[in-house]
Amino acid sequence: MSGFKQEPHKLLVIPGPIEVADEVLYANAHPSVSHMSAEFIQVIGDCIRMTREVLFSTTGQPFLIAGSGTLGWDQVAANLTEPGDSVLLLNSGYFGDSFTECLLAYGAEVDEVRADFGTAADLNDVEKALKAKKYKIVAFTHVDTSTSVLSDAKAIAETVNRVSPETLVVVDGVCSVGSEEILFDQWGLDVVLTASQKGLATPPGLSILIASPKAIKVFEERTRPPASYYASWKKWLPVMKSYESGIPAYFATPPVNLIYAYHASLTQLTKARPSLQERFALHRKASQRIKDELASIGLKQLPLDPYYAANGMTAVYFPDGLKAPDVIPRLLKKNVVVAGGLHKSNKDKYFRIGHMGITIVNEERGDVDKIITAVKESISEALAEAESKKA
Amino acid sequence: MSGFKQEPHKLLVIPGPIEVADEVLYANAHPSVSHMSAEFIQVIGDCIRMTREVLFSTTGQPFLIAGSGTLGWDQVAANLTEPGDSVLLLNSGYFGDSFTECLLAYGAEVDEVRADFGTAADLNDVEKALKAKKYKIVAFTHVDTSTSVLSDAKAIAETVNRVSPETLVVVDGVCSVGSEEILFDQWGLDVVLTASQKGLATPPGLSILIASPKAIKVFEERTRPPASYYASWKKWLPVMKSYESGIPAYFATPPVNLIYAYHASLTQLTKARPSLQERFALHRKASQRIKDELASIGLKQLPLDPYYAANGMTAVYFPDGLKAPDVIPRLLKKNVVVAGGLHKSNKDKYFRIGHMGITIVNEERGDVDKIITAVKESISEALAEAESKKA
Repeated sequence: MSGFKQEPHKLLVIPGPIEVADEVLYANAHPSVSHMSAEFIQVIGDCIRMTREVLFSTTGQPFLIAGSGTLGWDQVAANLTEPGDSVLLLNSGYFGDSFTECLLAYGAEVDEVRADFGTAADLNDVEKALKAKKYKIVAFTHVDTSTSVLSDAKAIAETVNRVSPETLVVVDGVCSVGSEEILFDQWGLDVVLTASQKGLATPPGLSILIASPKAIKVFEERTRPPASYYASWKKWLPVMKSYESGIPAYFATPPVNLIYAYHASLTQLTKARPSLQERFALHRKASQRIKDELASIGLKQLPLDPYYAANGMTAVYFPDGLKAPDVIPRLLKKNVVVAGGLHKSNKDKYFRIGHMGITIVNEERGDVDKIITAVKESISEALAEAESKKA
Repeated sequence: MSGFKQEPHKLLVIPGPIEVADEVLYANAHPSVSHMSAEFIQVIGDCIRMTREVLFSTTGQPFLIAGSGTLGWDQVAANLTEPGDSVLLLNSGYFGDSFTECLLAYGAEVDEVRADFGTAADLNDVEKALKAKKYKIVAFTHVDTSTSVLSDAKAIAETVNRVSPETLVVVDGVCSVGSEEILFDQWGLDVVLTASQKGLATPPGLSILIASPKAIKVFEERTRPPASYYASWKKWLPVMKSYESGIPAYFATPPVNLIYAYHASLTQLTKARPSLQERFALHRKASQRIKDELASIGLKQLPLDPYYAANGMTAVYFPDGLKAPDVIPRLLKKNVVVAGGLHKSNKDKYFRIGHMGITIVNEERGDVDKIITAVKESISEALAEAESKKA
């Protein structure tokens, strides 16, 4: 460590990007290094191994590619589907809509089990759909960042593996990896795709994906070449294997600095205390505290049923009579940055708070207190002003 | 400026990534910022405007997307070709082969004008091909990083625009933007695609592309939707326009920190001295000096004809009897990192030196002297050792 300290700034508590530790930012400012050097190959090899650890997998194949989380959908669509293949998508929000759109762009046929706003797909409906038709893939968003809805990944995988064991279970974990427990091997998942800027506590710009041996087999047995060049596992699989075995390989230049940053963050996540399971527990505890505190001043939250509530973010309805411009600028003045709503049906009615990574784990920062205090004060000031205008 | 200084390290003079200035690395360590914040939208809007400036364009539409340079090929293939469309690819090396492979992956039909190793396509052959068949696109690698061959972009564009004015001129400028003159509007180019880590002197991880109004019109008139989701201009075009007009927009999370870094580098490139044209002249001058100095000790270079010689890199044959392991580790010991060969036909016979960005422009660094001295010494030591082994 260099003693590097990032500039003072507003507390960023949107559901990604999140606050990033000084040592991770410092790694992002690493001097230029050759992407073919022994030094770098070791670092990216470690990142591949630690990605597996974060997901409690021993046999999964990670892919680390310059891109955003969205590129993970293209990886799934281009490598695991062929035109006409059937996908069952459990849609719990905005990101479910987009994942479907991506699959359709590559020619897959998509049936959806759509959940009501603020809930996840009903398991009985999933079971019914799987019994009625053979699907190559069941896909869902683990935490839909638009609604803060957590899907029960373990139960969904259990259902799919029981009713339709050949079907691949694909999890969009962009807003869950690092903040929600995911036991990749044990739960029988086939793909988890994510990105660097949320629970993995790294700047944005890295598409991160892990695929089970079963998924790789489906990929290898496809009849047509992958329907993408940049996202083609035919290109990336040998490169990832080579990196991991310590041998330089080239398809496209990796985002070298970001890989150093990811390495710094993964080292914290996998080699230091709190352990991963302790981290998940800390996220659950802090999330509950935020949700309870905001409920205590009468703020209605999304989802209504705690069974569907994510632990790395909270979606909060504005009180009656208040809108985003009444509240969010007040929070900004208190140096707290939250996100607006993001779901076509209700986007102006709620706002979203992200609480992941060092905001939760480094308790001495006091971020959770800052969030609670700032939201309470802002809402109460906004209500008082609305009241005084009425009077 | 913060007084931030990057760690001491070996001089990286491969043809990308290149040495990056302290202030650019410091910007890469920017505290986390919301990708929807007014602050960030201003920064990415500036990057779009300055990308245009770097290419001397007033009407081109830039696209800035998390990814490597390779993603630019996918952008071209997925947005500007439809299955069965004809592309004429002027192939001057490894990256020509790969660009063809990418176009084929999206269903285009590709004819190639193949250049001999170490040369670029013959303009007469290009003209002949254009007269014999109608092509939607003529594409070429401006500087093929595998061979250090510079294609005459201006002359190629002039030929295409004269013989087949409807054809789009697509330039892979990954290894040329920032180090070679490119007058996008004046030369009548339709696409220049590049990446952040070479002449643009930023860490890797950003796919940068500019498209002419003519190219955008071809895109808008396509009959099928783009054959990619992540690379779809249907998604990115409104987002880029929105960013530039200062309004937040979302399709996929941009690589926020890298955009800050790119902004810092573009500010140097477009707002400071030396001017862009002065930079190109400095690159030409230093390149000539390196090439002359290495020729002066008998080192044969690729390309043989200076008309085809890139100004941001030099490819050098090992003297007879020497191989990469005799020379490259000696350079490493002198803290100079060069790249091996990269072209199937001759890859073990030569090595590559990158000389772009601050290595050229910040003459007080003395990088060019370091390169020349280290190469001369290493070659002479290796020759002496080979000689002594023979004796």
